[in-house]
Amino acid sequence: MTRPGGRSARVRDAVHDAVVELLAAGEIDAAIPKIADRAGVNPTSIYRRWGSRDNLLLDAAVTRLRATSPIPDTGSLRGDLLGWAEGVEAAMRDRHGQILLRALVATLAPGAEPVEYLRARGDDLQRMIDAAAGRGEPAPTVDEVLDFVLAPLYLRVLFRRPVEPGAGARLVERLLTALRADPAPPAGRGG
Amino acid sequence: MTRPGGRSARVRDAVHDAVVELLAAGEIDAAIPKIADRAGVNPTSIYRRWGSRDNLLLDAAVTRLRATSPIPDTGSLRGDLLGWAEGVEAAMRDRHGQILLRALVATLAPGAEPVEYLRARGDDLQRMIDAAAGRGEPAPTVDEVLDFVLAPLYLRVLFRRPVEPGAGARLVERLLTALRADPAPPAGRGG
Repeated sequence: MTRPGGRSARVRDAVHDAVVELLAAGEIDAAIPKIADRAGVNPTSIYRRWGSRDNLLLDAAVTRLRATSPIPDTGSLRGDLLGWAEGVEAAMRDRHGQILLRALVATLAPGAEPVEYLRARGDDLQRMIDAAAGRGEPAPTVDEVLDFVLAPLYLRVLFRRPVEPGAGARLVERLLTALRADPAPPAGRGG
Repeated sequence: MTRPGGRSARVRDAVHDAVVELLAAGEIDAAIPKIADRAGVNPTSIYRRWGSRDNLLLDAAVTRLRATSPIPDTGSLRGDLLGWAEGVEAAMRDRHGQILLRALVATLAPGAEPVEYLRARGDDLQRMIDAAAGRGEPAPTVDEVLDFVLAPLYLRVLFRRPVEPGAGARLVERLLTALRADPAPPAGRGG
């Protein structure tokens, strides 16, 4: 008998794979039975675990996008930001990454479930920022990282503009330049 | 008899109104006959003018969003940017503006028509920038305006984060600070 955790993780992976494959095949409206069929699981397992198709799409998109851009521990804010931003940039230049971002935005439409799933990514960034502050480096807020780096990369994809090579690194340098110009604590910045 | 231009503009307005009302009522999948019915026009007029539902949605979203944030001619880049960004911020705090942005992003999915309609907004910004350069002010590129100001505001809405009062002005100040710190010509910036 397999451990429940191991089986549970495999089901999650298989279902996420099925979602990505169906989205990539243009079947953006695929219903849960079709997803279950492709994943080789019982539809009941999906309803029980995710509750709704929107919840499943949101979980798949956030999990997969998060996996494409882990935050490294390089010992400097700059190194951490560059490593992370390069992952985001690569995902945004990749067709599957673009599809997942669109799915994410579509499921965040009004009326959808709350954005709890998104918190994981915010928590990742907060840990990176806390580590930098702990080393005495001028540290941004999560909102500043989103504004300077993530928003411009995501908007290129959502508006079908090209993501130019090196865009992630350039946006990180912009953020670091702004921090050097005004290294005040968050509450004092941007007013 | 009315001038064709006047009638044509009225039809366009009525059809755009119908689109916005249907989207606001949650009918995001409303087909052309339903939109025509609500606008009091013949479906044929819509097919002839816009060709497809996606084209119509794109035109309605860009036209209306553009109308919410005209670019003023204040005589300074800062004044122009602030006036424009306040309009964008107001639209992004407004339910109809949020709905239009979501419709815009949804119609820009792969497979949709090209982004010709978007060019109008880029042209507006380019004229503002050219005027600033003509006065000898350090001027950003259109991409910098999008990265610093528009992307963060749009992403708040698309990710269902609140648009805080004054966000537009703060983002404009960030851009102006970055320009002061590095007033090189566009080709020399951001490398």
